[in-house]
Amino acid sequence: MTYDLIVLGGGPAGYLASERAGAAGMKVLCIEKASLGGVCLNEGCVPTKTLLYSAKLYDGVMHGEKYGVTAEGAKVDHAKVVARKNKTVKMLVSGIKTALKTKGAEVVTGDGKIMGKCDEGFRVCVGDTEYTGKKLLIATGSSAFVPPVPGAKEGMEKGKVLTNREILALTEVPEKLVVVGGGVIGLEMASYFNSIGSEVTVVEMLDHIAGENDAEMGEILRKNYEKKGINFMLSVKVTEITDTAVMCETAEGERKELPYSYVLMSVGRRANTQGIGVEEIGVELNRGAIVTDEHMRTNIEGVYAAGDCNGKSMLAHTAYREAEVAINNMTGNEDVIDYTKIPSVIYTNPELGSVGETEKTATAKGLDFRCVKLSMRFSGRYMAENEGGDGIFKLLVDNKTQRVIGAQALCNYASEFIVSVGVMMEAQMTLEQIKKVVFPHPTVCEIIREAVFAE
Amino acid sequence: MTYDLIVLGGGPAGYLASERAGAAGMKVLCIEKASLGGVCLNEGCVPTKTLLYSAKLYDGVMHGEKYGVTAEGAKVDHAKVVARKNKTVKMLVSGIKTALKTKGAEVVTGDGKIMGKCDEGFRVCVGDTEYTGKKLLIATGSSAFVPPVPGAKEGMEKGKVLTNREILALTEVPEKLVVVGGGVIGLEMASYFNSIGSEVTVVEMLDHIAGENDAEMGEILRKNYEKKGINFMLSVKVTEITDTAVMCETAEGERKELPYSYVLMSVGRRANTQGIGVEEIGVELNRGAIVTDEHMRTNIEGVYAAGDCNGKSMLAHTAYREAEVAINNMTGNEDVIDYTKIPSVIYTNPELGSVGETEKTATAKGLDFRCVKLSMRFSGRYMAENEGGDGIFKLLVDNKTQRVIGAQALCNYASEFIVSVGVMMEAQMTLEQIKKVVFPHPTVCEIIREAVFAE
Repeated sequence: MTYDLIVLGGGPAGYLASERAGAAGMKVLCIEKASLGGVCLNEGCVPTKTLLYSAKLYDGVMHGEKYGVTAEGAKVDHAKVVARKNKTVKMLVSGIKTALKTKGAEVVTGDGKIMGKCDEGFRVCVGDTEYTGKKLLIATGSSAFVPPVPGAKEGMEKGKVLTNREILALTEVPEKLVVVGGGVIGLEMASYFNSIGSEVTVVEMLDHIAGENDAEMGEILRKNYEKKGINFMLSVKVTEITDTAVMCETAEGERKELPYSYVLMSVGRRANTQGIGVEEIGVELNRGAIVTDEHMRTNIEGVYAAGDCNGKSMLAHTAYREAEVAINNMTGNEDVIDYTKIPSVIYTNPELGSVGETEKTATAKGLDFRCVKLSMRFSGRYMAENEGGDGIFKLLVDNKTQRVIGAQALCNYASEFIVSVGVMMEAQMTLEQIKKVVFPHPTVCEIIREAVFAE
Repeated sequence: MTYDLIVLGGGPAGYLASERAGAAGMKVLCIEKASLGGVCLNEGCVPTKTLLYSAKLYDGVMHGEKYGVTAEGAKVDHAKVVARKNKTVKMLVSGIKTALKTKGAEVVTGDGKIMGKCDEGFRVCVGDTEYTGKKLLIATGSSAFVPPVPGAKEGMEKGKVLTNREILALTEVPEKLVVVGGGVIGLEMASYFNSIGSEVTVVEMLDHIAGENDAEMGEILRKNYEKKGINFMLSVKVTEITDTAVMCETAEGERKELPYSYVLMSVGRRANTQGIGVEEIGVELNRGAIVTDEHMRTNIEGVYAAGDCNGKSMLAHTAYREAEVAINNMTGNEDVIDYTKIPSVIYTNPELGSVGETEKTATAKGLDFRCVKLSMRFSGRYMAENEGGDGIFKLLVDNKTQRVIGAQALCNYASEFIVSVGVMMEAQMTLEQIKKVVFPHPTVCEIIREAVFAE
């Protein structure tokens, strides 16, 4: 069978590309080895939000007294939370199936492997069946990286050392959870299990948590979580995982032993480019990730890559946009990806929402900018909903153009309003234009308006 | 004492105008008869959000079982909620005081009355003290309208018939609350008292609730609240309020008797233009509201009006923008108000957020538009957080320009993300431009993106 396009992978990049290609009239085949929706929908973004929402309700009543709300014996039935998560994921996967069908995209389940080129395009096999694609989109995603620490592999085999995949399937509550890696995934899982009663320790090799996020906000978030009982060990390296404990070493060479019931490995992710046959057609890799240009083209004409497998941003929403850019370019509508306006969110409590430059990245680039920093206490709704809250907001403005180049918010609802700064950036609005936007009152997002007027 | 500007009223329009005028170097006096922040901060927007947040926490645990969260004997201590509300309001009022001081605006407490014109401008008295303002900004706000129903006045005197002001100070939980008027204020209060255990009946003269909001969404909201136990009586007129019951009449002439412990009057608000001396200088009124142009000027040169007293939009955030427009024009920076991009929110659960045109208003204006309507089930986060949710989203697009002219969302977080559509409208973005905006995933606000691509 010959297709206009074969898409390898049915995650955010793959399924969306297939939808868009189908909608554009291309004959498209999407090959997915496991479940449509990929890591994001099945073992990542969406399942974690289901868990975190239950934790939010539970935290709401546990800490409700200052808001006048009390209850006895509040508890979370973790197994029920996981069952609901599975149900929600199932519904959403079925929604993707329907969407692909509606747009005329075919789906085949199995391991897709590129076999080589042919006159008509590219040969791809799934088991014994061979398909030909005039064009190819590689969207094979990424996998959790498990560092070569002695005992890690054995721990995984014993089911005690987990990645995002396994921990989301866990139906018991770990008594002691050691989280290795204090980035987004580590923090969200630490947050959830802390809420539902686990004793949680986060071990981070760097001297700060939350990765590339604003350092000051990461620090406030850490202090918030320390108050809630999470133990953080920064600048600490894991040296071994025994049957009962995670062995670490501090920067000063001090050895620590952390007993665990489970260990979550969340130190990073690696592009999935092994075993899919990229070498058969000579697709260029860089440190294991597929090299792409701003049109999402690889070095091989007709072969594109989108999503985590190119190692650029490793976020589902970046994957969506990359997929669209790829399809637009395939269908003759020139389009380029712009990585300077990608938002990111940590769905902890409070949330940390970010878009564009941080003070650190803007400084590193030598940009001529200023940072307007405000306490969230300037928002009436924040005050109404956050007793003793210590959130902050930062707005980064280019001094020459008077345009916004970035923003970070540490507060409730940050996930849902940070996009409005992204819209301002996409529209290249100046502060003067933004001043005319009417924000509903009272809202937490009014902090953006306060920042614009704060000078 | 002579001022560049005298501002009558220290509510959202008045205090913000005073801040902006002070920042622009004007010598400004703000006269407030009660508490800075006006109705919005003291008896409206912010206090209600404090109450509704407590109700949200309580509802969270009461309906938490489907999310795996349970507790025994959950309760809301209403008196404590009110005490916390008072504390929050006090802090925010103090914040406004500080802001005004910082910007160099003077504040005087008392009833301001315009006495007439003089060579230097306008004479305004507060008690025995006379001040002169070269310019005048009237920002006297509005008051709850109590219709001339037999018994209403007597009920108010007895403290049984309440407006927004008195109900927010109530420290007991009414056993039976009758809410007259199903607009924003009525619905938010009905929602709160329903949550904390009152038996609530909403009586509405029209055949729908939620006023000018999208009718379909109002209907879904009503059904949601009926399920939660609120009783709605539509197309019903209140004929009398006795000592024990609200007497009504249906459209068919049938009489009903609704026993109450308290009655909330929330049928609308009237501009405050009595007793402030507007007649001394000949300011034009229309149905009791001050007539203003797009520059916020009245018919009298040098006299401006902003906020509820001009009767245009009666929303705090409109007042903010009007105040800014007035000050900008006073200080030589021409600026005009645009009422087509004003958002509005009902902070019930789910929230109803709206900006710009609705299907009804766009149709009435004869606009050539289309409405993209989506179930909120297209959002993964919505699915993660709303078991059995029936929210919807509408995006209105101008067929000629391909620009967004309005949007409505019935879902959680609508209050916080509807502004992003306002930003798109302010920047006059076309759908093609909006398609390039990267929305964080998974978020409820992604529904905007879904709608943009839904065609």
